[in-house]
Amino acid sequence: MKRICIYPGSFDPITYGHMDIIARARGLFDELVVAIAHNIRKNSLFTISERIEMISELTGKFGNVTVDAFDGLLVDYVRKRNACCVVRGLRAFSDFEYEFQMALTNRKLNDSFETIFLMTHENYSFISSSLVKELIEFGGDISAFVPEPVEHRLKEKLYVHREQ
Amino acid sequence: MKRICIYPGSFDPITYGHMDIIARARGLFDELVVAIAHNIRKNSLFTISERIEMISELTGKFGNVTVDAFDGLLVDYVRKRNACCVVRGLRAFSDFEYEFQMALTNRKLNDSFETIFLMTHENYSFISSSLVKELIEFGGDISAFVPEPVEHRLKEKLYVHREQ
Amino acid sequence: MKRICIYPGSFDPITYGHMDIIARARGLFDELVVAIAHNIRKNSLFTISERIEMISELTGKFGNVTVDAFDGLLVDYVRKRNACCVVRGLRAFSDFEYEFQMALTNRKLNDSFETIFLMTHENYSFISSSLVKELIEFGGDISAFVPEPVEHRLKEKLYVHREQ
Amino acid sequence: MKRICIYPGSFDPITYGHMDIIARARGLFDELVVAIAHNIRKNSLFTISERIEMISELTGKFGNVTVDAFDGLLVDYVRKRNACCVVRGLRAFSDFEYEFQMALTNRKLNDSFETIFLMTHENYSFISSSLVKELIEFGGDISAFVPEPVEHRLKEKLYVHREQ
Amino acid sequence: MKRICIYPGSFDPITYGHMDIIARARGLFDELVVAIAHNIRKNSLFTISERIEMISELTGKFGNVTVDAFDGLLVDYVRKRNACCVVRGLRAFSDFEYEFQMALTNRKLNDSFETIFLMTHENYSFISSSLVKELIEFGGDISAFVPEPVEHRLKEKLYVHREQ
Amino acid sequence: MKRICIYPGSFDPITYGHMDIIARARGLFDELVVAIAHNIRKNSLFTISERIEMISELTGKFGNVTVDAFDGLLVDYVRKRNACCVVRGLRAFSDFEYEFQMALTNRKLNDSFETIFLMTHENYSFISSSLVKELIEFGGDISAFVPEPVEHRLKEKLYVHREQ
Repeated sequence: MKRICIYPGSFDPITYGHMDIIARARGLFDELVVAIAHNIRKNSLFTISERIEMISELTGKFGNVTVDAFDGLLVDYVRKRNACCVVRGLRAFSDFEYEFQMALTNRKLNDSFETIFLMTHENYSFISSSLVKELIEFGGDISAFVPEPVEHRLKEKLYVHREQ
Repeated sequence: MKRICIYPGSFDPITYGHMDIIARARGLFDELVVAIAHNIRKNSLFTISERIEMISELTGKFGNVTVDAFDGLLVDYVRKRNACCVVRGLRAFSDFEYEFQMALTNRKLNDSFETIFLMTHENYSFISSSLVKELIEFGGDISAFVPEPVEHRLKEKLYVHREQ
Repeated sequence: MKRICIYPGSFDPITYGHMDIIARARGLFDELVVAIAHNIRKNSLFTISERIEMISELTGKFGNVTVDAFDGLLVDYVRKRNACCVVRGLRAFSDFEYEFQMALTNRKLNDSFETIFLMTHENYSFISSSLVKELIEFGGDISAFVPEPVEHRLKEKLYVHREQ
Repeated sequence: MKRICIYPGSFDPITYGHMDIIARARGLFDELVVAIAHNIRKNSLFTISERIEMISELTGKFGNVTVDAFDGLLVDYVRKRNACCVVRGLRAFSDFEYEFQMALTNRKLNDSFETIFLMTHENYSFISSSLVKELIEFGGDISAFVPEPVEHRLKEKLYVHREQ
Repeated sequence: MKRICIYPGSFDPITYGHMDIIARARGLFDELVVAIAHNIRKNSLFTISERIEMISELTGKFGNVTVDAFDGLLVDYVRKRNACCVVRGLRAFSDFEYEFQMALTNRKLNDSFETIFLMTHENYSFISSSLVKELIEFGGDISAFVPEPVEHRLKEKLYVHREQ
Repeated sequence: MKRICIYPGSFDPITYGHMDIIARARGLFDELVVAIAHNIRKNSLFTISERIEMISELTGKFGNVTVDAFDGLLVDYVRKRNACCVVRGLRAFSDFEYEFQMALTNRKLNDSFETIFLMTHENYSFISSSLVKELIEFGGDISAFVPEPVEHRLKEKLYVHREQ
């Protein structure tokens, strides 16, 4: 039986922190699905298609990583994909509390899969997508936070916004 | 002297977590007042009247539990009701920090009453009213989180919203 | 029915932090029992009798506070005293974790009573019996940490120790 | 070489907690600059000028404290001012996490200065500018939280708001 | 390639909390090795052989769980077994800190394997081997904390100790 | 007036984590005193003289760092040295709690100096002297945790121990 692991998130945009978790988790399972959660109530900077493009470009070199998007509850998506587990990165204590609440809730809704946690590398422990978006707006250097193609697209977005 | 304890909150809606605290706290004092805080700046799903109705229905079996609503500062309401203490449920560390800040502030404003904390049962430690509202919107099964009459009313609300 | 609350601890010796919890908790119940846990595996500085004497002297002014000592499990003592609850002071996060573990364990062993938590006053939040014992050994001024009679007895103990 | 320390923040308005940090930090360096961060995306109650006025009035008695405002990234402002460090007050654990993330990010962006942390006095550990604004709206007594001139201005603001 | 996961610990004795992690983790990998760490500096209640016996008896029903013991550093044992990861249960925040420190240290010593974390079921979140040993000494009922065969052996140990 | 900062600790032995704090703190003050606390109740691996030698060797290149040792209370030593502050490194949350308790206690005993906190670099956040001693005993590679001269001395100590 092929073991599939889901890595859900907004990835708006993908950072070196996410890349680190992908590289670690893909070695533990037969397939790792990076699954972009479509949240209509949260404003996103990049469209789902743009995010799929970026992640695909950056993870193409890994044979067993695929990219997908989903609507609705994570537990339903996991069931549909027949995955054995969901992986989440933990960076710090505040992650821990939120992630535990989500994992306990998901276990209550569907106890046929597990949530596993990996530690983000300490060098990326302070990076978040929202921090990156805030920094670039103020002209900060984000090359230590996101891969080059993502930085490029962030600057394009910013340029378009300022033009309008 | 009759000892009155106040259990303040939004209860929008009441969950099994709140019910657990009510069942525990009512045994410690002569009267337990479930006091709905009227917060004009926060959008609520249920009106104050609807919340009073639901809580009254669910706590009717307890002889010493009453339901009320209040405007303004909690310290003023506690003084008006001549209560000896306020009870709050603690579920996790993030509760702890927020609740301590509030309790310290209230003590500074009026040191004639105490804030006591009870632990929510571990089975309900991840439940919150906002989680329940989010789950039902995505079609999640919430029967493990709220009593049946609350689930019923939540579905009615949702139906009305979708009709509009 | 008279409501009895148990305040268990080592009280080796009693500090201003403990005094603060006693003053707060005694207003909420008909009787507050300060119950010294007899732990044969922990070395104590003061004997049970000395601790009973000190606490009795300091709480004599409160009409509804009594002092006692117990062996064995707290849950058995609570049952024997027919108490409705146990009170514990919370000073900081590390207290919170330990206290929650104990309260959950006690609930599993006997769910007929509650554990309630009160916040220690922020001015006493860093005081502990072991800190006091460490400070006095190095000649630190402990008058801000323990009542005068306790300071007096601590100095006596120290003198006796050094003589030997 | 003169050592300059920056104390950045919103100070909307300045509280006794901020005053405590200013009094402590100014003794450690040759000059302490209270630097108001101009954040166009956050609604503020007081204008930058009003905040400069209030802080200047309250810190005038300290010879080595100056007041300033800045736009953009803190790291750029620190470089411009040629400061050796930034000081931040820690009140509680939630501060700790946020402040660490910011300090790590700033270190990545510019490692030529340090972020130092001081503990806010325990008596002010629960005060925040937003709490003060919420309390005054509900008629709470805020004299224990902010200096008198700030309380006066807060009441003026409130009066003007209600008139409109 | 067969994926092996190591579950290291003292298991002195195994509790329902450990059993829960074993049941969860074994579904994610081809083989799960319960690996008893031999720590000469820590007094243990049960010998390594007794612990192997108990765990084997309780996990015999699971086809892909084996039991082993090891000396020295975990990283060396993982390399020897050619395992892809180590699994640890997280019960609460204090676990989180300690486990993260160990995982970071192990990663520094050998970055060819991952440490994954699973949440212990909330019903077992307060159980620890040392708590169980303390409770049984005071005559507490431990049937909710350990499987029956373990309870039986604990009582035997206790009897032998008291005889001596 | 020359500003002196004290960096107190056991330094048994000094690690890269300590070195990082020394390098950061020495830039903020005129003189940084690395002050070894002599604790007769704690078994140490290295003597005070050995620790002074190691730290002196490693900090000799810094013009404004001196090494000293002290008995008794830190507050008395700070007063004697006429220092304006004490610096402590924070690595993680558990540090935070302990350090805050110590800083509050010291402030109560002597409020004429400040305790400032610096964050240890994220690459050293998991290193502690006791971890290093444990690793070397089991033959772990500690070159990423302590400078070469310290590693050398640790191996000497170990060799002597084993010979005995």
